Amino acid sequence: MGSLNTQEPETGFPTSIKPFEPEEFRRHAHLVIDFIVDYYKNIENYPVRSQVEPGYLWKRVPDSAPNGPEPMEDILRDVRNDIVPGLTHWQSPNFFGYFPSNMSTAGFLGEMLCTAFNTPGFNWITSPASTELENIVMDWIGKMLQLPHEFLFSGGGGGVIQGTTCEAILCTVVAARDRMLQKIGLENITKLVVYASDQTHSAFQKASQIAGIRRENFRAVGTTARNAFSMTPDGLRAAIEADVKAGLVPLFLSPTVGTTSSTAVDPLGPLCDVAKEYGMWVHVDAAYAGSACICPEFRHFLDGVEKTDSFSFNPHKWFFTTMDSCCLWVKDPGSLNDALSTNPEYLKNKASELKCVVDYKDWQICLNRRFRSLKLWLVLRTYGVANMQNFLRRHVGMAKEFECFVRKDTRFEVVVPRNFSTIVFRVSPVGTYPDSTRVFGDQGANELTAKLLESVNESGKVFMTHAVVGGVYVIRVAVGATLTEDRHVNLAWDVVQEHASQMLLTLT
Amino acid sequence: MGSLNTQEPETGFPTSIKPFEPEEFRRHAHLVIDFIVDYYKNIENYPVRSQVEPGYLWKRVPDSAPNGPEPMEDILRDVRNDIVPGLTHWQSPNFFGYFPSNMSTAGFLGEMLCTAFNTPGFNWITSPASTELENIVMDWIGKMLQLPHEFLFSGGGGGVIQGTTCEAILCTVVAARDRMLQKIGLENITKLVVYASDQTHSAFQKASQIAGIRRENFRAVGTTARNAFSMTPDGLRAAIEADVKAGLVPLFLSPTVGTTSSTAVDPLGPLCDVAKEYGMWVHVDAAYAGSACICPEFRHFLDGVEKTDSFSFNPHKWFFTTMDSCCLWVKDPGSLNDALSTNPEYLKNKASELKCVVDYKDWQICLNRRFRSLKLWLVLRTYGVANMQNFLRRHVGMAKEFECFVRKDTRFEVVVPRNFSTIVFRVSPVGTYPDSTRVFGDQGANELTAKLLESVNESGKVFMTHAVVGGVYVIRVAVGATLTEDRHVNLAWDVVQEHASQMLLTLT
Repeated sequence: MGSLNTQEPETGFPTSIKPFEPEEFRRHAHLVIDFIVDYYKNIENYPVRSQVEPGYLWKRVPDSAPNGPEPMEDILRDVRNDIVPGLTHWQSPNFFGYFPSNMSTAGFLGEMLCTAFNTPGFNWITSPASTELENIVMDWIGKMLQLPHEFLFSGGGGGVIQGTTCEAILCTVVAARDRMLQKIGLENITKLVVYASDQTHSAFQKASQIAGIRRENFRAVGTTARNAFSMTPDGLRAAIEADVKAGLVPLFLSPTVGTTSSTAVDPLGPLCDVAKEYGMWVHVDAAYAGSACICPEFRHFLDGVEKTDSFSFNPHKWFFTTMDSCCLWVKDPGSLNDALSTNPEYLKNKASELKCVVDYKDWQICLNRRFRSLKLWLVLRTYGVANMQNFLRRHVGMAKEFECFVRKDTRFEVVVPRNFSTIVFRVSPVGTYPDSTRVFGDQGANELTAKLLESVNESGKVFMTHAVVGGVYVIRVAVGATLTEDRHVNLAWDVVQEHASQMLLTLT
Repeated sequence: MGSLNTQEPETGFPTSIKPFEPEEFRRHAHLVIDFIVDYYKNIENYPVRSQVEPGYLWKRVPDSAPNGPEPMEDILRDVRNDIVPGLTHWQSPNFFGYFPSNMSTAGFLGEMLCTAFNTPGFNWITSPASTELENIVMDWIGKMLQLPHEFLFSGGGGGVIQGTTCEAILCTVVAARDRMLQKIGLENITKLVVYASDQTHSAFQKASQIAGIRRENFRAVGTTARNAFSMTPDGLRAAIEADVKAGLVPLFLSPTVGTTSSTAVDPLGPLCDVAKEYGMWVHVDAAYAGSACICPEFRHFLDGVEKTDSFSFNPHKWFFTTMDSCCLWVKDPGSLNDALSTNPEYLKNKASELKCVVDYKDWQICLNRRFRSLKLWLVLRTYGVANMQNFLRRHVGMAKEFECFVRKDTRFEVVVPRNFSTIVFRVSPVGTYPDSTRVFGDQGANELTAKLLESVNESGKVFMTHAVVGGVYVIRVAVGATLTEDRHVNLAWDVVQEHASQMLLTLT
């Protein structure tokens, strides 16, 4: 508690401690790097899903912040003993839940540089490199995805790195809303309707609500197994026509490339053909699957993107880039800026007045913004496009292998055909294990699949999550953690089999 | 371009490169740490405001991402040669612009751990430690600020770490909006009015617009020099009464503790007394000055906070914590959750169903969220409360010194009395330099002050920014960069004097 003797109000300097001193920083940072290496070397020893009980940490830490300083060694000890057990280890090679949150050495190093410079790049002048590198990297990735030229800065559009998809959608909904209300009058905000499928991520509905779109004006167009849970143009048209007949105003459509539950892909071209008849803004949410589309063999999933208004995907999911980052491209930055720009006196500066620069504050909700492009730049340069494609193909290849395992075992069923690196399967309602002829039916299969998942996750050996598609409870296995190799996928399958055998045994 | 031989589609592994390998990570991370130490050791040699021209970086980098991998050494060379010159150095001890963006060793280390774990803590189960540490740290800081008990988890309220103030305000405006519309009907969204002073940060107006509040329903209550640019209860009441008479509905008031232009403080208690008569939500924006209120001698600026509904401040400004982080407390988390919660099937889990945990996805716009509490926890423990107070007092002390310099020089004028660590001054419109009796008048003073600021900033030796308060153009000197010491404040004053002398000389 050596800090007490530094309490000399307003007489200058605490002599014992400075918030930053380069050599002390170097020593401590090296210490933390070694801590992190140890964490990664041991990561397979931790239960993937945290096994703590609610409230566990409240019992282990004091009620209030310490008055005096504590040594870094003590703090790292507490991270090891108190924090690590409370983590669900997204970086474990045995993590197959949700969608991946995959990191890389290059992404981490980019984050370190971003943190070290710690520049809020809200205007060009507040750090020209931050804005221009973001412009450049967004054009680079846009080209890798073969986005239409109009989405690139070099083609009159442009891209911005947001934090998450919800932010990206909120910005585009607000841009579309304000553009539409200018035409039809502000008082008609209650008439605006937004459209997506019933498989669309909850982020879209949430973003729409935040933007003041009425909850009952969110249309979830129904999907079915017959169309592999993708939205049909006919379904969309029917919904729109009913709304127009009711005096409402179609505003916005958000098709998904790679839905959360089953990685379904909505057909962009045909959906746009419908939406454009009604002057709607179309935003493509490719949060997870967008990454794969840098591979020529997956690019066809983006066919029709040239007809849309905006497109986003999350490098922090499956592009080896640490959180947070969501790349958003728009054809018409003007619409975005009209809705989101502010121009207070205290931010005025020559470059902005001359309108010869991008001021990213006018492309997003927040003012402050981190230098996120650094990490993407490091990722792209450190690995190169060809390796990035191969990293992704490797995950897809492993997912294909897991899918084969499932298809070969009659106790299970692949519920929706695999598009990318995510498998969606369940305990089969008809075929069971070889020495039984018992038939569970859909309800029975749902219950058994849920029970199996909980049993698998409780083991701590692997972590998977669930979804319900078309009334069917499924286990999702999303391959994409950076460290996952063939042996982990094999282990995951072994664990599923073993727990299924045990569970089915107790049923006989 | 050694990557080409790794292009083996779907046959497994690229043999030459992995996205993460612990020992290679260690080597590269140590390299980057040393790079960062060098950056900090040299930071005073760089012009504080970047001197590059718009478009400089486009000329230096290739048109597209490389196909093959590039060595880290080459990339770091390019960071040094191409990125660093394009930075405005917010971490320079000679940075006095805007508000600080101050970092610390502990904040940086916390960011490293956050990045290494890379856990999206949207639900408790996705990383219990992430949620619980955030609960705990928010209670700790709430106690340091002596916030009312109802703002703490232990008192039925609670806190959340958002990215920026704009997000925090947007969340609370949406919560207030939905609470009000439930009473008065959704169709009345166009009648809602929000209130602040004409000194309030543009983030409030922007957040309100995003939430669907009409632009013309934003009231900027006028302030004057007589009240040191703080909002008066009478001004607020007059604005509200006029709106009510016109059939509009007062919704939300956002007083500021420490405005951007002059760090004015709106009187919370008396303003709440007015707002509460009309059932409004009151949110306190203390983005910059909130930090100082952990010192007993500044706590009085928060008097009346017990009557408000929510409170936020940004540790990434002046609390030695790297970007991004905005601490938001609310008395009634239920209102926030009602407006922001989603409950899709694929996120359902036992702990959430039992309602025995906090799921932070329902406290913010985004789903994904970084483990931001780690950095705050490290900052508080590494330095301790007493040192944190002294770090802040040291900055205030230096600002006081700069203010004395200004007051002693008759060529200048302190325009608004200093509250915290920011000085607001201008070239005096009446007294000039000793050997002249020339009087510039307000218009002349405005022009000269602007000219002086540009000259000072062009020197690259220091960086300051401007504001206009009550029609008066002022230079703002915000002391708060982590590395700033007395000698830098002395230098800043020398630079101002020198450039003023030169400028005034050319006028004679």
